Amino acid sequence: MSKNNGNSKMVEQITSMDVDFAKWYTDIVKKAELIEYTSVKGCMVIRPYGYAIWENIQRILDGMFKETGHENVCMPMFIPESLLNKEKDHVEGFAPEVAWVTHGGSEKLEERLCVRPTSETLFCEHYANIIHSYRDLPKLYNQWVSVVRWEKTTRPFLRSREFLWQEGHTIHATAEEAIEETEQMLNCYARFCEESLAMPVVKGKKTESDKFAGAVSTYAIEALMHDGKALQAGTSHYFGDGFAKAFGIEYTDKENKRVNPHQTSWGVTTRLIGAIIMTHGDDNGLVLPPAVAPIQVVIIPIAQHKDGVLDKANELYEKLKSTGIRVKLDNSDNSPGWKFSEYEMKGIPVRLEIGPKDIEKNQCVLVTRHNREKTFVSLDELENAVNVKLKEVHDGLYEKALKNRENKTYSCKSIEEISKALEEKGDGFIKAMWCGDEACEDEVKEKTGAGSRCIPFEQENIDNKCVCCGKPAKHMVLWGKAY
Amino acid sequence: MSKNNGNSKMVEQITSMDVDFAKWYTDIVKKAELIEYTSVKGCMVIRPYGYAIWENIQRILDGMFKETGHENVCMPMFIPESLLNKEKDHVEGFAPEVAWVTHGGSEKLEERLCVRPTSETLFCEHYANIIHSYRDLPKLYNQWVSVVRWEKTTRPFLRSREFLWQEGHTIHATAEEAIEETEQMLNCYARFCEESLAMPVVKGKKTESDKFAGAVSTYAIEALMHDGKALQAGTSHYFGDGFAKAFGIEYTDKENKRVNPHQTSWGVTTRLIGAIIMTHGDDNGLVLPPAVAPIQVVIIPIAQHKDGVLDKANELYEKLKSTGIRVKLDNSDNSPGWKFSEYEMKGIPVRLEIGPKDIEKNQCVLVTRHNREKTFVSLDELENAVNVKLKEVHDGLYEKALKNRENKTYSCKSIEEISKALEEKGDGFIKAMWCGDEACEDEVKEKTGAGSRCIPFEQENIDNKCVCCGKPAKHMVLWGKAY
Repeated sequence: MSKNNGNSKMVEQITSMDVDFAKWYTDIVKKAELIEYTSVKGCMVIRPYGYAIWENIQRILDGMFKETGHENVCMPMFIPESLLNKEKDHVEGFAPEVAWVTHGGSEKLEERLCVRPTSETLFCEHYANIIHSYRDLPKLYNQWVSVVRWEKTTRPFLRSREFLWQEGHTIHATAEEAIEETEQMLNCYARFCEESLAMPVVKGKKTESDKFAGAVSTYAIEALMHDGKALQAGTSHYFGDGFAKAFGIEYTDKENKRVNPHQTSWGVTTRLIGAIIMTHGDDNGLVLPPAVAPIQVVIIPIAQHKDGVLDKANELYEKLKSTGIRVKLDNSDNSPGWKFSEYEMKGIPVRLEIGPKDIEKNQCVLVTRHNREKTFVSLDELENAVNVKLKEVHDGLYEKALKNRENKTYSCKSIEEISKALEEKGDGFIKAMWCGDEACEDEVKEKTGAGSRCIPFEQENIDNKCVCCGKPAKHMVLWGKAY
Repeated sequence: MSKNNGNSKMVEQITSMDVDFAKWYTDIVKKAELIEYTSVKGCMVIRPYGYAIWENIQRILDGMFKETGHENVCMPMFIPESLLNKEKDHVEGFAPEVAWVTHGGSEKLEERLCVRPTSETLFCEHYANIIHSYRDLPKLYNQWVSVVRWEKTTRPFLRSREFLWQEGHTIHATAEEAIEETEQMLNCYARFCEESLAMPVVKGKKTESDKFAGAVSTYAIEALMHDGKALQAGTSHYFGDGFAKAFGIEYTDKENKRVNPHQTSWGVTTRLIGAIIMTHGDDNGLVLPPAVAPIQVVIIPIAQHKDGVLDKANELYEKLKSTGIRVKLDNSDNSPGWKFSEYEMKGIPVRLEIGPKDIEKNQCVLVTRHNREKTFVSLDELENAVNVKLKEVHDGLYEKALKNRENKTYSCKSIEEISKALEEKGDGFIKAMWCGDEACEDEVKEKTGAGSRCIPFEQENIDNKCVCCGKPAKHMVLWGKAY
C-alpha cells in the first residue's frame, strides 16, 4: 500500500450521486486512486489500489476455476486476419471494433494482425492442433489477459478500449457436457458476485439479438446498479459445434468415427470494479466488500503523540496481520479527521480507532464504513470482533443492494406501464412478458429506452400476453437501461 | 493438471543433446507440452504445463517484490508514436522492432500506436501526472504483462515476438536511492535464480555498448547453459534523471525547489523457462527445480489392479497433498514403464512407486529425477522423506549446474587463448581483461565469437593488460557466446 506521507491537504469532496451519478462515478475512480487517464483515449492506468482489487478478484476466481478442473494457458495477443475470418458470425461481430497491426518495425506485414478482442479463434486453431481422439477431451482452459475493442465512447472500467479479463475456453466430446459447463461457470460467477462482491445478480439467457457473435446461446448475470441501470456482470456462451466445424476441429470417438467436439467460453472483466463502485459506493466515496478490499481494516491512532498509543496501535496491527486480516496502520502526522475522510473515500470496510482513553479501558472503537456504526470492543476479543464486523459489512452491503434492486424492480403489463414506471419511479428492472419476436423486443427498447437484459431462469407469470404485441407470451423478460 | 486418459502410446524419444542441442531444446518444449506453435511466427501458445511453471515463478517473485514494498499496477499496452519518441536513445533502441497499430476498426488512426516493447514511456507519462512533491516519492511499481518485439529469428521462450515478463519501474527523490533500488532488485533476481531455479548466476554490469536504450547503467545476471552458451537471465537499469527530463517529471523538494527525480526499471521474462530447460534438462527430457515444478511428486502405483494398491496410493496422495506438496497420482491404465518415461519427460522432481510388496513392508520407493537414485522409505516417515528428497534435488541440480559452469569457465590472457579455449574445450565463459575501449570489445567478439556478457562485481586480476590491445586493463570481463 502506498505510504501516506504526512501531508495535511484536505480530502477533496466528490460530486453527490444524487446530483450527477456519472460525475460521482468518475470522481470516485480518480479520488480513490483506482485509475489515471492516459494520452490514449479509452486506455487507462490501473493504479495500485485499483489493481489490488483486481488481484483479489483474480485470486478468488482463479481458485474457483482450478477447483473445477480448469487450467490456465496463455494464447498470443495477435490474430491473423484470415484466422479471424473463419467463423462468419464471429468476424461480423468483432471486425468493426478491432485494432489492426499492419507494420513490424519499418516493414509492412504480409497479412495484418488484429489485437485479440476475444480469443475463440486462437483457441480453435490450437484445439485443431492438439485434439485428435476422445482421449484428448475435454480441455478446460482459462487465461487472464487484456483484450482490445475499439469502442467509440469509453468510461473507466465500464467500457474501455483495453480491458483486463479472464476468458475461459473449453471443448467437450458432447453437447450435453458443454452445456453443463456453460451453466456451471454462470453459477460460479453468480456465487462469486454474491459471496465475494456482496452483489445480487439475476441469472438468465440472452435473447437471440443479444447473443455473443458465433454462439448458439449466451447466458449472463445481470446486476442492478444504485442508479437503477443494469450492468451485465459476466457471460457464459455455448457454441455447439459451429466453431469446431469452421476451424476443422475433429476427434475420433470410441466408435472410431470422426466427429466435431462442442465448445464454450465465459468471461468476467475489470468491469466488475465498476459494478462494485456503483453498487456499494456513496457520497463519501468507495465502499468495498471485505472479500476483495485490498485493506480490510485501517488502524487510526488518536492522539498518537501520547505515550503508548503508537506502541499499542502497532501491537494491534501485528495481531490482526498475523491472523490473515489485511490491515494497515496509518501513523502519519495527518489529523485523525483527515484520515477518516481519506479511508472512507478508499472504501475500507472497517476503521479501528485507538487512543489513550481506549487503552486505559483495554478497548478500541470499530467503525463500519457502510453505515458508520461505532462499536466499542475489548482488546481481548479483537480478532473475533473484527471478523464479526467484516461479516456484518458483507451482509449489510448485500442486503442494501438487494433492497435497492427490489425497490427498483417493476412488473408491467404494457409498454405504457413500462414508460410510466421508469418515469415516475426512476430507472430500474422491468419484468414484462414477451412473445419471442425480435420486432417486439426492438419496439420496447425504442419506446421505453429499456432493452432486454435477459430471460431469467426463474420465470414468473406476469401476464399471459406479450407486453408489446399482445400475442401469447413465451417468456418473462427482464428489461432495463444498461451500462 | 491434465488427465492422463489411459492411452498407451509410446513416449517418443527426443534428440540427444550431444547430437543437436538446438533440436534437443525444441523437442523438449514440444514433448513436455510446454508450448505449441501458432500461425503467427514468433508467437506461441503457452500450454498448461508451461504456464503452471510461469505461475510458480510469478508467485515467488511477486512475493519478493511485495516484501520489498513494491505495488503492482497495469499500464495500457499501446504507446502513441509521439510518446515513444520523447527519449532519444530509447526510441532509437526500440523503434526498429515494434509492432504498429494503424487502424481501429475500419478507421485509420490519427496517430499510430505501437504495442509496448517495454513501458518506460508509459510510466513516465503517468509519473508526470501524479508526482508533484517529495511526499509523492518514491513510487515502487511493477507490472506482469506481455510485450512485443518484432524479432527476425525466434525460438520458444528464448526469443519470441511476444513474451511474458514483469517490469518493475521505480522513481526516487535521489540518485543514491535509485541506484540502491537497482542493486536490490538485481540481488533479488540472483537470489531467486539460485534459491528457486537452482541456477547459479554471475552478477555484473553491462558495458556501455550493451546497455538498455536510455539507461545510465545496466546490471545483469548471467547464467551458463549446459552447452556452454551464456544466457542473460535478468536485468536492472539505472536511468538517472534522463527520462524525467525528457518527460518533464519534476517534484518540489523540501527546500521548495523544483527538481527531477531518478528512475529505475528491472525485468525478468518467460526466458527463465528456457534457462531452466537448458540448465537442468537431459536426454530423458525436462528436469524441474522443485520450487517451480507444477507437480513435485508423481505417485505411480505398481500392479494397481491388485487389492489395496490404489487405496494405498490414494491415501499417500491425500497425505502429501495435505502438507502442501504439489502431488499427482496417475492411476490411468498406462503401464508403469510408460508413466516413468512420461513423467521423466515432464521433469517431475520425485517419483513415488508403491506396489503390493511395498505395502506389505509399509514402505515405498522414491526416485529422484535428476540422478534416478532409488530410496526405500518407511510410510511412517513419508512426508519428511519427500521433503528431504525435494531438497536433495534442488541441491543436486544447483551443484551440477555450478560444476558445469566451473568446468566451462576459462581464464585467458590473449585473443588467441580465447579462440583456442573455445575451440578445444567448447563454448563457455571466458574471463579476460579489458581496457574499456569499445573497439577492443568489438574485436574480441569478431575474432572469437564471444561477446562481453558483463563486468562481474567480483573482479579477479587475470592479467594487467587488455586481452586485445595490451594497454592497461580496467576490468575483468566475462565473455561468451550468448542466447
